[in-house]
Amino acid sequence: MTQWVYRFGGEQTDGNADMRELLGGKGANLAEMASLGLPVPPGFTITTEVCTYFYDNERQYPKELEGQVKDALAAIEAKMGLTFGDPSNPLLVSVRSGARVSMPGMMDTVLNLGLNDETVEGLAQSSGDERFAWDSYRRFIQMYGDVVLGLEHHDFEDILESHKRDEDITEDTDITAEGWKSIVAQYKEMAERELGHPFPMDPWEQLWGGIGAVFKSWMVPRAVTYRNIHDIPATWGTAVNVQSMVFGNMGQDCATGVAFTRDPSTGENYFYGEYLVNAQGEDVVAGIRTPQSLTIKGKEKEGSTLPAMEEVMPEVFGQLCDVRERLEKHYADMQDIEFTVQTGKLFMLQTRSGKRTAAAALKIAVDMVKEGMINEEQALMRLDPQALDQLLHPTLDPMAHKTIIAKGLPASPGAASGKVVFTADEAEAQAGKGEQVILCRTETSPEDIHGMHAAAGILTSRGGMTSHAAVVARGMGRACVAGAGAIAISSKSKVMSVGSQEIKEGDIITIDGSTGEVMLGEVPTIKPELSGDFSEVMAWADKARRMKVRTNAETPLDTQTAKDFGAEGIGLCRTEHMFFDPERIQNVREMIFAEKVEGRKAALDKLLPAQRSDFAAIFKIMDGLPVTIRLLDPPLHEFLPHSDADIVSFAKTAGIDEAIVRRRLGELSEANPMLGHRGCRLAISYPEICEMQARAIFEAAVETNAIPEVMVPLVAGKKELSILKTIIDDTAKAVFEEKGKSVEYMVGTMIELPRAALMAGEIAEDAQFFSFGTNDLTQTTLGMSRDDAAKFLPDYVGKGIFEKDPFQTLDRDGVGQLVSLAAERGRETRGDIKLGICGEHGGDPASIAFCEEVGLDYVSCSPYRVPIARLAAAQEAIRLGKSKATDTKKKAA
Amino acid sequence: MTQWVYRFGGEQTDGNADMRELLGGKGANLAEMASLGLPVPPGFTITTEVCTYFYDNERQYPKELEGQVKDALAAIEAKMGLTFGDPSNPLLVSVRSGARVSMPGMMDTVLNLGLNDETVEGLAQSSGDERFAWDSYRRFIQMYGDVVLGLEHHDFEDILESHKRDEDITEDTDITAEGWKSIVAQYKEMAERELGHPFPMDPWEQLWGGIGAVFKSWMVPRAVTYRNIHDIPATWGTAVNVQSMVFGNMGQDCATGVAFTRDPSTGENYFYGEYLVNAQGEDVVAGIRTPQSLTIKGKEKEGSTLPAMEEVMPEVFGQLCDVRERLEKHYADMQDIEFTVQTGKLFMLQTRSGKRTAAAALKIAVDMVKEGMINEEQALMRLDPQALDQLLHPTLDPMAHKTIIAKGLPASPGAASGKVVFTADEAEAQAGKGEQVILCRTETSPEDIHGMHAAAGILTSRGGMTSHAAVVARGMGRACVAGAGAIAISSKSKVMSVGSQEIKEGDIITIDGSTGEVMLGEVPTIKPELSGDFSEVMAWADKARRMKVRTNAETPLDTQTAKDFGAEGIGLCRTEHMFFDPERIQNVREMIFAEKVEGRKAALDKLLPAQRSDFAAIFKIMDGLPVTIRLLDPPLHEFLPHSDADIVSFAKTAGIDEAIVRRRLGELSEANPMLGHRGCRLAISYPEICEMQARAIFEAAVETNAIPEVMVPLVAGKKELSILKTIIDDTAKAVFEEKGKSVEYMVGTMIELPRAALMAGEIAEDAQFFSFGTNDLTQTTLGMSRDDAAKFLPDYVGKGIFEKDPFQTLDRDGVGQLVSLAAERGRETRGDIKLGICGEHGGDPASIAFCEEVGLDYVSCSPYRVPIARLAAAQEAIRLGKSKATDTKKKAA
Repeated sequence: MTQWVYRFGGEQTDGNADMRELLGGKGANLAEMASLGLPVPPGFTITTEVCTYFYDNERQYPKELEGQVKDALAAIEAKMGLTFGDPSNPLLVSVRSGARVSMPGMMDTVLNLGLNDETVEGLAQSSGDERFAWDSYRRFIQMYGDVVLGLEHHDFEDILESHKRDEDITEDTDITAEGWKSIVAQYKEMAERELGHPFPMDPWEQLWGGIGAVFKSWMVPRAVTYRNIHDIPATWGTAVNVQSMVFGNMGQDCATGVAFTRDPSTGENYFYGEYLVNAQGEDVVAGIRTPQSLTIKGKEKEGSTLPAMEEVMPEVFGQLCDVRERLEKHYADMQDIEFTVQTGKLFMLQTRSGKRTAAAALKIAVDMVKEGMINEEQALMRLDPQALDQLLHPTLDPMAHKTIIAKGLPASPGAASGKVVFTADEAEAQAGKGEQVILCRTETSPEDIHGMHAAAGILTSRGGMTSHAAVVARGMGRACVAGAGAIAISSKSKVMSVGSQEIKEGDIITIDGSTGEVMLGEVPTIKPELSGDFSEVMAWADKARRMKVRTNAETPLDTQTAKDFGAEGIGLCRTEHMFFDPERIQNVREMIFAEKVEGRKAALDKLLPAQRSDFAAIFKIMDGLPVTIRLLDPPLHEFLPHSDADIVSFAKTAGIDEAIVRRRLGELSEANPMLGHRGCRLAISYPEICEMQARAIFEAAVETNAIPEVMVPLVAGKKELSILKTIIDDTAKAVFEEKGKSVEYMVGTMIELPRAALMAGEIAEDAQFFSFGTNDLTQTTLGMSRDDAAKFLPDYVGKGIFEKDPFQTLDRDGVGQLVSLAAERGRETRGDIKLGICGEHGGDPASIAFCEEVGLDYVSCSPYRVPIARLAAAQEAIRLGKSKATDTKKKAA
Repeated sequence: MTQWVYRFGGEQTDGNADMRELLGGKGANLAEMASLGLPVPPGFTITTEVCTYFYDNERQYPKELEGQVKDALAAIEAKMGLTFGDPSNPLLVSVRSGARVSMPGMMDTVLNLGLNDETVEGLAQSSGDERFAWDSYRRFIQMYGDVVLGLEHHDFEDILESHKRDEDITEDTDITAEGWKSIVAQYKEMAERELGHPFPMDPWEQLWGGIGAVFKSWMVPRAVTYRNIHDIPATWGTAVNVQSMVFGNMGQDCATGVAFTRDPSTGENYFYGEYLVNAQGEDVVAGIRTPQSLTIKGKEKEGSTLPAMEEVMPEVFGQLCDVRERLEKHYADMQDIEFTVQTGKLFMLQTRSGKRTAAAALKIAVDMVKEGMINEEQALMRLDPQALDQLLHPTLDPMAHKTIIAKGLPASPGAASGKVVFTADEAEAQAGKGEQVILCRTETSPEDIHGMHAAAGILTSRGGMTSHAAVVARGMGRACVAGAGAIAISSKSKVMSVGSQEIKEGDIITIDGSTGEVMLGEVPTIKPELSGDFSEVMAWADKARRMKVRTNAETPLDTQTAKDFGAEGIGLCRTEHMFFDPERIQNVREMIFAEKVEGRKAALDKLLPAQRSDFAAIFKIMDGLPVTIRLLDPPLHEFLPHSDADIVSFAKTAGIDEAIVRRRLGELSEANPMLGHRGCRLAISYPEICEMQARAIFEAAVETNAIPEVMVPLVAGKKELSILKTIIDDTAKAVFEEKGKSVEYMVGTMIELPRAALMAGEIAEDAQFFSFGTNDLTQTTLGMSRDDAAKFLPDYVGKGIFEKDPFQTLDRDGVGQLVSLAAERGRETRGDIKLGICGEHGGDPASIAFCEEVGLDYVSCSPYRVPIARLAAAQEAIRLGKSKATDTKKKAA
């Protein structure tokens, strides 16, 4: 016979903490605490399998369930010496849901179940407190009515409020036993009126009602939506916990409280928590009475005058401290616990791993290693790489007042305030005067780079998480809110508007790139401080991880930042960004407008010294670490003037007829630039561009003793690479001869088209390395332009078509197949081929995990994500048993 | 010891027709004729392996070669009773190249090799004709000097012309023996001056020079380019044929001629050819003398007064007729032959399969089956599917004078003349008045459809073979020249210009969509006539082929055309084309502008009856054949007004503020529309569009008893299909209930994104059919927009990066892998899944062959390509031994 019901806390405990899948988180931990001998009120858990059965069988329970519940309840009765529904000495129970993971949207709790017009009298007798009994009864009716019977919360509130008005009372605590009796009568009357039948008096009917409500709540829309978003399968189901009530509100020797075994904000190792004397759990949360600190230390820290539990109930507090220590040791993690003291006796109602800030997580992990509770790898596994972002960027002062006027995507973390400017030039000009500015654009383009660099933050009204603004801002470590669609930005009239509100150039706003909020005025921010814990954790991560972590950088500033964050080389240096420099763009444009190869070469010759010094600067900073330089990638028209003023000015300076400039602009425009004349296709058409870039690279490398890796973008097969490799090799040979000195170098390619992935075996004949350009590979594999996806991606994620935005987290099913296949075929041809990833995914923990699974040699990400990548790479190495660390005695589970 | 030399025509013949790879086409056929006992002058073939050896070994010959050549030459001497270099009775030979396939750019022929200052006297004696001997000698010096020694052709011509001027002679035939002697002396003088050494007198030196020239010509740039274009591996190499000379110019009992065993223009079964008395082969081609007909019938047909060979040399003619019959029977194909009559004796110099027009190919194939020479499948294999295009479209009168002003891509076959118009509306207006018009646009868009339909031909200055103009024109069977880049078209000023030439609206031009030529004025065209042979061949093809052939059509006209051409259903009915109808576009636009679902539904309700009647019309024509209807695919902004006038007019009619219309236009514009909000993504965002279309389909199907196949475009995985399939199924159910009648139907999807191909296994859980949309699949797999590829594809094909334009012929290496994989995974999930292709490749024979290899169930192509597809599918089925024909006794080789 299937065991549908697992008992805990009585004569027998059937479950343990490892049985989360069957018993849910709450049930498993209650069983675990009971097994540890901690004082857990007896109860039982109806398994998640019943939930599954329920939905597979037209909402019927398995026939054995009723008997098993009866037996389990009888065991509670035996343990407690009480009887369910006994008018003189009734057993009361709580009913709570409990899925494998904590899940909002589901039925939470019904307390005091078992009370009715008869048993309330028994409770009054046994507790010797009539007011307590009727207060408990009304609480039950209210909760049960709300969550099980679907009555409106405000109907109960109305009755309560009108009673208080009639009696001229302001506080619930002033309501007498008689008052609660009257309210109970009105509650029941209202319930019967609304339901068409009386409020259930039979405790068993109440119990099955409660159990059914939990199971039904698994499929309410809010829960379904939450599961879809968080990728929780409906098949997991929820468990139901039925537990004997204990009361913290039976007198002054009673109390209830919640606590964290360490400070969840800072991680400090002291007992952090709150309690209330003579109260039920919900009172602590409700905020009607001010909760008191558990410890004297906590009381002092908060400057409270209310007595600490340590003072008021020293004995029970001592027991609680024991429990704290046992739970931390047992779980080897900071715990979030709930307890109740009933007439001087401590009961534990819940324990679970406590949520914590990034700083606290770091400190707790480091401390616990020092305390010998966990080893370094276990500590690493506790940390959320994404949360490190909080430590690296300014955050808004949580105490500050905020006037939020719009919300966009949290495109690049950090908070920033400054004057609104609408053009890159203005941003640069203002920043030059020492002003802090926020650059506000409909969307940004490569021409805005200098303004983005000058700005403290960037706000756009269009574009997604991988729009130009978002990608560049993350690379530069600038705060960015992207795609704030409610804002209409007009750079012409220098004004932006949200609804009827207008914000002009020079007005001050604040953006929070970690939440996407846009706020009026200056909101104070807190500067990040990297603690010693951070370096320590990073050092552990570096010992554990197998993959190298490089950065995507092309300016000396970014390169230095990334190196300071621990980057072990550059995985993607985008040469085109160097072309946008105002002094060079004229030469670039002249090159594009040249009709013949001679004209192009003349313009390229002017660009050569600049490119060479760019590369030399980066090589010097990276000081012998590998630097992958990608040849020119974007379509040429991105470099061209677009505004009338720019066109006129360019034509004049270049001495080209304006009409010709405009015609050429038309010719160069593309229907789908992403799929157009770009990447290596430019070098195939204009080999002299490749030659100039190769020359700049090798001249700089010879000068600085660097080991460059020359990367050819956007190949569709082997032949393109072969043609360009010949040019690169020939140029290297020529430079080495001229300079009388040579350096080592590699030639490789990006794998960023599905065809390149499919042809990887052949391509590897000529490529010494592959770098997966998963931005473009995602665009082409999915047929989705990241610039345009904002229109439908929310629908796609909302409807569960994609689990996550595939531009943020690599699409394993589709793009991942191509990456695996290309890695496999590449290695078949060339066993020692170097494999890396340089798309945005290189900084995303879930994607990094995939890279480790496939066995890439490195990931490359924007500078500020380097620490995240180091940790994520370490975690996956540990998870897969590939950790390189040798000094950890035992492996993490 | 390797046999490097194969003899023929003497005591011993080593080769045969099957040895093309080793002996080249010419050598293999000479050997074959010799084996048949036909009079072939003795000779030998130096194999292609020598060529390969030559290039693998720094241009050295295998050491055994010299001996083998000597022996083979000795055998010729023995057979002919002559000696090479014998001053009194010299053997003369010809040296010719001969690769596996005929290849321009290579050395062709050196005749009379072996002549020098001594042997010329011997020839004079033995032939008794001094003039003949010296004429032969000067011919040799000229040919050898030109092709072996690299002397300039005009230097020889100058000497000859100046001699004639000095002697006051106009015709070569008037030059005397003395004259030729003097010319020979001047030739030799000039050669020595140019070369720095005397013209070679040693026959063996001449021979090795000739052989070397053939091998070296294998690698000259023209030959290399030709091989690259035609995908001929350099490793094939060429053979060299050395053959005893026979002379058609030794007197009135000598002659030379070329002939086809049937008429290569019409295919008629009569002996078609030309000859000249007392002439060498080159004279027939040179056009100095008018060649005479072989037969009396030929002479009469041509209205010639010159006597036929049948009359002049009845005996030899009789022998030639025997040869004709034997060769045709032997090769079972129409032959192109060369012969020489030397002093009354017939010699055969060449035979090969003759080139022929499409009409002739058809007639010959049908006739030969009737004559019992070949079976039906063999007949089918003889035909070039692409050539059928010639039969289906008007062609230019080959006799007409043409003033070609520009050349573009041959985008849609057929020739058309008409008045130039620059807008679709004008095209429609003029056509309405009965004018024949050519619509000239920079590029076309879906808004031009009505004008394209009205026009006789379409000319664009931008776009490739798969641009909108090209695709739509092929679908409609309109002639189209696309991407004629030299023409600048201004629809505003209603003028187009090529260089300094201007063509105004109303001027007449002619375009030839089969060659890409654009001509001034009206050039007469010839209307196509489909013969009974055509139907017969098509019937055989239908018996043989395994794959079904459907069409891409969405208008009743196209549908009917395709059905008349044998389409077995519709593989792609693009519903969006129906939305461009001027009466409907307003409703479509209102739908797009609706802010809420109610507004969209109201607009859709207005579109429903129109869509329903569209479908009903098509269903009626297809009369029970399957019709695959694709749900709305293009990005919505394609439907929107773009010109100022249209915007104002739309805003007014719809009652929407113009500013809002413009804002919305901006919002809907996309950076990369190909990868944007289109395909099923529209239906995911706006399910009501899918619902309306499904309703229109099912209501029409119920009305007409059709079996619709509803196709969801652009899925990236299973989930999108599942969501829309639910809507489609629910709508079907609703319609069937309302109408009290149901029809069978299928729901399937396009596989047109790499991710869809990769996920085909899962997708097949919900898809009853896959249709490979290889246009988009090519774009995404290669990361190439077909609208933009024109800028670099020529470079790509020219440099051999792609063998062929991947938008015309499916890229087997890349896209092909995905198609195979998707077919395999789809079938694993659903054994009976129906698989088809509906991209442009569905009408391309090479791509159709691939589809057969993968085992697709059908191909779908534009109406005018249906016959091509029927034949191509049959050929590949036969090739792979999958022919369904049961009545062919023996399989084709």
